[in-house]
Amino acid sequence: CYIQNCPRGGKRALPDTEIRQCIPCGPGNRGHCFGPNICCGEELGCYVGTSETLHCVEENYLPSPCEAGGKACSSGGRCAAPGVCCNDAHQTQR
Amino acid sequence: CYIQNCPRGGKRALPDTEIRQCIPCGPGNRGHCFGPNICCGEELGCYVGTSETLHCVEENYLPSPCEAGGKACSSGGRCAAPGVCCNDAHQTQR
Repeated sequence: CYIQNCPRGGKRALPDTEIRQCIPCGPGNRGHCFGPNICCGEELGCYVGTSETLHCVEENYLPSPCEAGGKACSSGGRCAAPGVCCNDAHQTQR
Repeated sequence: CYIQNCPRGGKRALPDTEIRQCIPCGPGNRGHCFGPNICCGEELGCYVGTSETLHCVEENYLPSPCEAGGKACSSGGRCAAPGVCCNDAHQTQR
């Protein structure tokens, strides 16, 4: 499950080290889901609500928490692609 | 040029009716550029910094102003795809 959406009392209290990357997506599965309909990859850029994101909803049904993306960036987001900072609902892009 | 980036004194004072849609992009050219590296379409969703957006920078070199997208939505944006509201730098997604 996307860590910000995991059911309470689930494994949200896991130490950071054990939080896996969210399921892969996009061309060649070279991206990772950032949310139920966002798929990003360092070399790919980001897909929002496109066919590449369709299976990102499956992450909702996995019990273990996942966290997407790389370094933290503005407004509590994570770097998704060059110049693209994603948090679960807003995608700011510089 | 993207109307918000058009050079001052250009044709920015055009009546709304004469502002064209920005150049097409994405699969089957069924989308329109929303910014130099954002391409969205009603049935497509949005591509941010992906290969689908590469030629959206060309709009910068066209003299006439263009405006992307459909109805206005939150924070001065335009509806880009179902649940996706785009303005030139931020993409909020509900």
